[in-house]
Amino acid sequence: MSKDPLREGRLGEGRPPEVWSYLSSMEADRFIGDADIAVDIAHLLMLERQDIISKEAAGRIMDVLLELHKKGLPDSVFDEKFEDVHAGIEAFIIEKTGIDTGGRLHMGRSRNDEVATCARVRLRDDMITIMSAISEMRAVLIRKAEQNTESYMPGFTHLQHAQPTTLAHYLMNYEQALERDFERFGDVFLRVDLCPLGAAAFASTGYPIDREYTAELLGFSGVLENSMDCVSGRDVFIEVISACSILMTTLSRMCEELILWSSAFVNFVELADEYCSTSSIMPQKKNPDCAEIMRGKAGSALGALTASITIIKGLPMSYNRDMQDLWPHLWQTVEDAKASLKIISGMIDTASFNTERMNEEAGKGFSTATELADVMVREFGLSFRTAHGITGRAVRMKKIDIDTLEEAAKEMAGISLKGLGMTDEDVKRALDVAYSVNTRIATGGPAPAAVKAAISGKTAALKEDTEWITDMKIRNEEAFKKMIREAEELMG
Amino acid sequence: MSKDPLREGRLGEGRPPEVWSYLSSMEADRFIGDADIAVDIAHLLMLERQDIISKEAAGRIMDVLLELHKKGLPDSVFDEKFEDVHAGIEAFIIEKTGIDTGGRLHMGRSRNDEVATCARVRLRDDMITIMSAISEMRAVLIRKAEQNTESYMPGFTHLQHAQPTTLAHYLMNYEQALERDFERFGDVFLRVDLCPLGAAAFASTGYPIDREYTAELLGFSGVLENSMDCVSGRDVFIEVISACSILMTTLSRMCEELILWSSAFVNFVELADEYCSTSSIMPQKKNPDCAEIMRGKAGSALGALTASITIIKGLPMSYNRDMQDLWPHLWQTVEDAKASLKIISGMIDTASFNTERMNEEAGKGFSTATELADVMVREFGLSFRTAHGITGRAVRMKKIDIDTLEEAAKEMAGISLKGLGMTDEDVKRALDVAYSVNTRIATGGPAPAAVKAAISGKTAALKEDTEWITDMKIRNEEAFKKMIREAEELMG
Amino acid sequence: MSKDPLREGRLGEGRPPEVWSYLSSMEADRFIGDADIAVDIAHLLMLERQDIISKEAAGRIMDVLLELHKKGLPDSVFDEKFEDVHAGIEAFIIEKTGIDTGGRLHMGRSRNDEVATCARVRLRDDMITIMSAISEMRAVLIRKAEQNTESYMPGFTHLQHAQPTTLAHYLMNYEQALERDFERFGDVFLRVDLCPLGAAAFASTGYPIDREYTAELLGFSGVLENSMDCVSGRDVFIEVISACSILMTTLSRMCEELILWSSAFVNFVELADEYCSTSSIMPQKKNPDCAEIMRGKAGSALGALTASITIIKGLPMSYNRDMQDLWPHLWQTVEDAKASLKIISGMIDTASFNTERMNEEAGKGFSTATELADVMVREFGLSFRTAHGITGRAVRMKKIDIDTLEEAAKEMAGISLKGLGMTDEDVKRALDVAYSVNTRIATGGPAPAAVKAAISGKTAALKEDTEWITDMKIRNEEAFKKMIREAEELMG
Amino acid sequence: MSKDPLREGRLGEGRPPEVWSYLSSMEADRFIGDADIAVDIAHLLMLERQDIISKEAAGRIMDVLLELHKKGLPDSVFDEKFEDVHAGIEAFIIEKTGIDTGGRLHMGRSRNDEVATCARVRLRDDMITIMSAISEMRAVLIRKAEQNTESYMPGFTHLQHAQPTTLAHYLMNYEQALERDFERFGDVFLRVDLCPLGAAAFASTGYPIDREYTAELLGFSGVLENSMDCVSGRDVFIEVISACSILMTTLSRMCEELILWSSAFVNFVELADEYCSTSSIMPQKKNPDCAEIMRGKAGSALGALTASITIIKGLPMSYNRDMQDLWPHLWQTVEDAKASLKIISGMIDTASFNTERMNEEAGKGFSTATELADVMVREFGLSFRTAHGITGRAVRMKKIDIDTLEEAAKEMAGISLKGLGMTDEDVKRALDVAYSVNTRIATGGPAPAAVKAAISGKTAALKEDTEWITDMKIRNEEAFKKMIREAEELMG
Repeated sequence: MSKDPLREGRLGEGRPPEVWSYLSSMEADRFIGDADIAVDIAHLLMLERQDIISKEAAGRIMDVLLELHKKGLPDSVFDEKFEDVHAGIEAFIIEKTGIDTGGRLHMGRSRNDEVATCARVRLRDDMITIMSAISEMRAVLIRKAEQNTESYMPGFTHLQHAQPTTLAHYLMNYEQALERDFERFGDVFLRVDLCPLGAAAFASTGYPIDREYTAELLGFSGVLENSMDCVSGRDVFIEVISACSILMTTLSRMCEELILWSSAFVNFVELADEYCSTSSIMPQKKNPDCAEIMRGKAGSALGALTASITIIKGLPMSYNRDMQDLWPHLWQTVEDAKASLKIISGMIDTASFNTERMNEEAGKGFSTATELADVMVREFGLSFRTAHGITGRAVRMKKIDIDTLEEAAKEMAGISLKGLGMTDEDVKRALDVAYSVNTRIATGGPAPAAVKAAISGKTAALKEDTEWITDMKIRNEEAFKKMIREAEELMG
Repeated sequence: MSKDPLREGRLGEGRPPEVWSYLSSMEADRFIGDADIAVDIAHLLMLERQDIISKEAAGRIMDVLLELHKKGLPDSVFDEKFEDVHAGIEAFIIEKTGIDTGGRLHMGRSRNDEVATCARVRLRDDMITIMSAISEMRAVLIRKAEQNTESYMPGFTHLQHAQPTTLAHYLMNYEQALERDFERFGDVFLRVDLCPLGAAAFASTGYPIDREYTAELLGFSGVLENSMDCVSGRDVFIEVISACSILMTTLSRMCEELILWSSAFVNFVELADEYCSTSSIMPQKKNPDCAEIMRGKAGSALGALTASITIIKGLPMSYNRDMQDLWPHLWQTVEDAKASLKIISGMIDTASFNTERMNEEAGKGFSTATELADVMVREFGLSFRTAHGITGRAVRMKKIDIDTLEEAAKEMAGISLKGLGMTDEDVKRALDVAYSVNTRIATGGPAPAAVKAAISGKTAALKEDTEWITDMKIRNEEAFKKMIREAEELMG
Repeated sequence: MSKDPLREGRLGEGRPPEVWSYLSSMEADRFIGDADIAVDIAHLLMLERQDIISKEAAGRIMDVLLELHKKGLPDSVFDEKFEDVHAGIEAFIIEKTGIDTGGRLHMGRSRNDEVATCARVRLRDDMITIMSAISEMRAVLIRKAEQNTESYMPGFTHLQHAQPTTLAHYLMNYEQALERDFERFGDVFLRVDLCPLGAAAFASTGYPIDREYTAELLGFSGVLENSMDCVSGRDVFIEVISACSILMTTLSRMCEELILWSSAFVNFVELADEYCSTSSIMPQKKNPDCAEIMRGKAGSALGALTASITIIKGLPMSYNRDMQDLWPHLWQTVEDAKASLKIISGMIDTASFNTERMNEEAGKGFSTATELADVMVREFGLSFRTAHGITGRAVRMKKIDIDTLEEAAKEMAGISLKGLGMTDEDVKRALDVAYSVNTRIATGGPAPAAVKAAISGKTAALKEDTEWITDMKIRNEEAFKKMIREAEELMG
Repeated sequence: MSKDPLREGRLGEGRPPEVWSYLSSMEADRFIGDADIAVDIAHLLMLERQDIISKEAAGRIMDVLLELHKKGLPDSVFDEKFEDVHAGIEAFIIEKTGIDTGGRLHMGRSRNDEVATCARVRLRDDMITIMSAISEMRAVLIRKAEQNTESYMPGFTHLQHAQPTTLAHYLMNYEQALERDFERFGDVFLRVDLCPLGAAAFASTGYPIDREYTAELLGFSGVLENSMDCVSGRDVFIEVISACSILMTTLSRMCEELILWSSAFVNFVELADEYCSTSSIMPQKKNPDCAEIMRGKAGSALGALTASITIIKGLPMSYNRDMQDLWPHLWQTVEDAKASLKIISGMIDTASFNTERMNEEAGKGFSTATELADVMVREFGLSFRTAHGITGRAVRMKKIDIDTLEEAAKEMAGISLKGLGMTDEDVKRALDVAYSVNTRIATGGPAPAAVKAAISGKTAALKEDTEWITDMKIRNEEAFKKMIREAEELMG
């Protein structure tokens, strides 16, 4: 049976089992098994083109690789008797082609650059998935916003009813935040999208390798240059975890609101059944479990970020085994981000917003009193402080109409609002939720006109972002197809 | 086939598969599957004794439970179609005994108190394992220290050679730190060792349950009182993670030193092969992989701590689903702590310390100059500042003997050391590493006599700690045996 | 003017100003300035008693120290031209007594053990303050609970109305959590309460010091033994930060509820004005700012914990300058914990709970349906599943009375509840909030009787804890008084 | 004397002092005091241009603002009797101009958008400083690398001697990492560089404000649109802290190496005195304190990141007071990053690398054995596995010359190397450190030619980055000058 070619030396003998599993990275390696085959193919094509390996030997190895590429990896390569999947795959190839042939694949590279390349190949795809999912979520938000530009609701500060706004404005707030999340992933994507293959252990190699060629085969935008940095730098992976953590933090806020809004107290939203759990005895009870789990996973993402930075901090050059412990944090966080985005998009998309309840609450708490004072300033020429003082006093009387205001105005400032032409109609209009919201037409404000303008602008931005993602996806697919073609050609 | 009894309601229909896996806690539940059977048995015994369930129905359920207890849980109960292992086991019982019988087990409790109890049952055992492993590690350190009370070596500050010490003193430093780790686990153990069963959803139950009885059956030292706290408090679990994180931090420091000491530059230690990896081409190369992984895992433990606190922060009463995301962090951290302790004990135990190299480095860098100055103060009556000034000047001349000192003394203070009776013998003696170390006899100092005293004291303390652990282990085992006996008796 | 005695060497010349401030610990040292004087006095008394310093020289230094003790530290000792306050104080003493006298105080110790001792002296007091404040908070909770054993309110899971409970039960939940916080601080207190003085740089000293004597003078329960551990161990400080972080996490949950309960939606509590902010235009608006800030500070405490563990992780023995960066995190967190406890105690104490609103919400959402089913089981002999099925069906009909139940019972199980003797009175009783709560008399349950028992038990426990704290406080004060007396006697 | 205009309401009366300081943000506000004046000026210019305030009133307020701009803020505005600096400044203005005039400045905005704008104005400058400092550091590294392309040294994996490389290659590794740090700050800069002013409390305002105009006056690249996102989004600030934390992590690795390399064991570098501390008795001792502190500060930066994310996680819309607790973490981290970059640049620039020692160590541990095997493959046609097997056997014999190799070759593979034409010259050449390094000419490899190419490429990239920074700096300065001019023109 195949053995780990790296464990044959004297060191491995008599290793206690707990050490095997302590050192093993197999669980995390499941994420990069497929990528490893792609990297092997690219490396082999290059070795052959550079005459480092004979065409014949290359062909025999390629045969096995293409088989693995088509059928997927057998369980045997993930056996814990290998330290990692790279060793598992190498053992498989050697078993199939013999040591003298299969042993040549590793020329001009080492596991250090191999794992770094595999991680980037896999991560590139994951990031595209994440960015697509963010775009989908943005589309959902925009769609829901379009339907609710005149759905008035209370805005909150300190969880207290503050000024009124609209559901559309609320949703577009999250759209704007998610646009930044998209940008953030797009930015780090450019740093992930560079190929470290050929860095070998850290000092590159004396073989006449062609790093630009392997980078191109794998669809990377270029080569990650300095070979020591290739194998020891982990900052881009940390940055991806950070981007996920920030994204999850934004989602956690939305989840918090979905939970609050689902409570019997607030009752602003009813989530679709499939995202909730219930109780067998109280069927009216719907627990917003998905939103809670997601809020919790924001904590786990932060834990992964903390772990990763702590692991890397203070490590000298170049490769240190500690780095292996970073991978599980990366893959778990990326999986959670992908799943969370899919679920929250569905949750929002299928949610039923109770706009009647929202509207009912929108005017509570004298939420439009600020607007009334502003009207006195703008339309009746009062000074800012005076207008606010008058309104404040009326609010304290718990009633606002032209009479209480007149009384307050006389008392405080010796002026007559009625004398200035103010009528009860003016007061009612100023206190009206819709009026109040509709005046707030500045860029980014809640007035329907302003929100519609925002929707239009954001729709265009989203279209651009979506196209970019599609381009990236196609680029990667094309590169892979081309590489497989070249691999097949090598076989003759 | 059995279905999740909790998923039969209308909510579950049409749930997308990603939601199932998002909500599932099955992976973490593998850690508490066995504990759950024990908790079921205890609960059932109590229900029967309190006449909440008939003896006959109880007997039929107990039959299944004892079977599961003996043969272990079948894979089916961990199927992802159940939300958690509790649902999986309940479905299994109902399948075997029918809904009318099997459905009664859940009377007077809920999954909220059930999971909290299972976690404590399991954690209690894990903590005993950890404390035993800490004790074993302390024993190894003491044993190695006993052999090295006169193995002189340099001490370091800022990674610079400072004053000389001994390997024994070094090792006992870690022993003392680990004694605190032991205490820390012992302290939180008392808080873990309380039984939340009977708290039900959070408001306890109207059934006439006997919480003291189930607590006793499960070997707990008592009942965790307030039923809301029972299901919503997570601070003791966080505290366990914190204790693990602090322990791992201490271990990470020892690992850092093993890595440094293994480098060709320092060469103070040779680790046993089984804890290292090698390179096929450079067989002299031994990479201290276990120590590196362990240093990395200290980062992961901190990540788990951060995640857990972040998850719980700001959650209102009582149960919220976010809490589920804490468990994987707890179990992973506990597993890592157990494995790490076992490995580092073995690593130290099998390490070969190069005391010759240590001794060689001990006197470098004028490390004993402080002692020489102190001798001038203590034996020749010089003032503190004068003595240190004289020695300092000699050090700057890069040579210390009675002549350079005499010259420095005359120049700086106009006094003659020779005139005071100081000889070259005195100087040599004062500069001697062994002499310098041997004078440091204050409590906790590096002098062999002081270290031997410490070893003796710490041996006694360790013995006491080990006995306590053994007592706890026996107590738990006895309680379980007794409970199984009662369960069998119920069956008649 | 006085200079930093440690900066006189060649290294300090020409240091750029940014380096001075980068290396300075002065800001954090403000927390240990007073402790440093105490440590100096203890050390000096010991030096004199052990004949390491002459009585005369000791007297002259003591003169300055007692002056500083009485009048407090002058600003000059905190000048940034000194690296730390120890250097600042030493320079002050040397300025007053001359280099030959003042320079002797530092014999047999180093800044490494000095700072570790000062931190423990200060921290001991801070921890007593924290434990006293926790006790005070517990007393407030118990007092409020006593007044509200029959104040019914809804309990929540997933922020959804669940079963009813009482405000007293709610408050006692927090009391129980805080009892654990108290224990936690008490546990780590024992590890803080050991004296590292005499460890010197890390290898103790050749001077015939008496570590037990200085420990006793400073009121410590004993000596922290191994001298390397004394200066390099930071785990107890991390543990204190961890205890603070866990405490703050518990407080953050209570704050979350105060914020929720203050919202217009819930309106369960009105916080006293002094803990809130308002808006000049909406005087009815009361923002629960203190609760929000406190919830935020739970995040800052976790940040401090993360920072501290990350700083210490992987540091080799013994002292490394990185450790200095831990102090600001420790002191800031301790200050925040002290302030938060004081404020939340006041906030709860002065809060006005709206028990009418609570009662109104208590029965909503068929919260007592579980109880009704249990009554059918207990009093009318139905099987568990049947009873729950019947109740569930009635709930779905949105109405529960004897007629709907009878209909459901016939349909589902072909039985007549009326035939079994059940009346509408029985139904109403079972659905009654007070009845439902009052049946939950198991240990720790919400029934008034159970809560009263808990209050009585917790009152006794609190009394014991408070006495212990008082004893510790007195012990420290007595030790200090005695030390000052000895210092004055030395002066003659 | 001036009072906090926001504290005049009934709520503030009788507030305990601990609450004042608990709620105060004054310490952090010192960072944004100057920015606040700029924001006030911009806002006032807009109010006047939009006829929201009369030219006369605007002029009177502008008079005060320009005075504050020129002379700096008086201490009084930072008095803790104000909740924050905005209140302090407003009180100052009202004191100078009267309530009716000064009270108008706040029309059309609130403290929520004001603080968000101030933070971005300040942060923009700080980020430019950081990016400039990164560029300076990169320039230092490139300069040092240029001088050391043929300074051979050992490379390390697992802190074990591995293959040889050069100091230039080593330094360029860090240059490449810092280039990414630069990019990262550049990316988030674009997200910081948007103006939230005009969002008011969160719902914008009914006043006819012109947000584009204020954004332009303050030199922002545009308006941050959605007004709710403006005041509640904190992700960009978290991202800045994350960028700082990642940067500090990279620096911590370099510091770790400076510390290691400064140790007597390694002795690869001598740091300049001004970055070190010493001991008065061992003048040869130079502790690398700055590098240690910096390594520690990487931990503090992570703590700040953790705190910030935890604070924001789960907060509902829109403004919550918790957010205030984020600022101190942001400013402290930014300050640490600025100081650290300046210090490490100086430290590297003034460091004296001991290239002789490096060269001496470069060939140790058969570090070039891999190269020898590769030569057998490339030049003498051996198969990969055979060549490595032969070399490995020779290494085990602890001696490598043509005779031991010949013996190994015969034994293992039955072939004669001599027969293939291999000579002792070939062996010596292959084992030569310089030869080995010089063959590694692939992109990013350590061969002098490859490193020179890298230096040339990176020099060009750095030039571009530096120009961008300069452009940004000039843009901001020009905008400010223009704004002040307009302000002065307003005064006529």
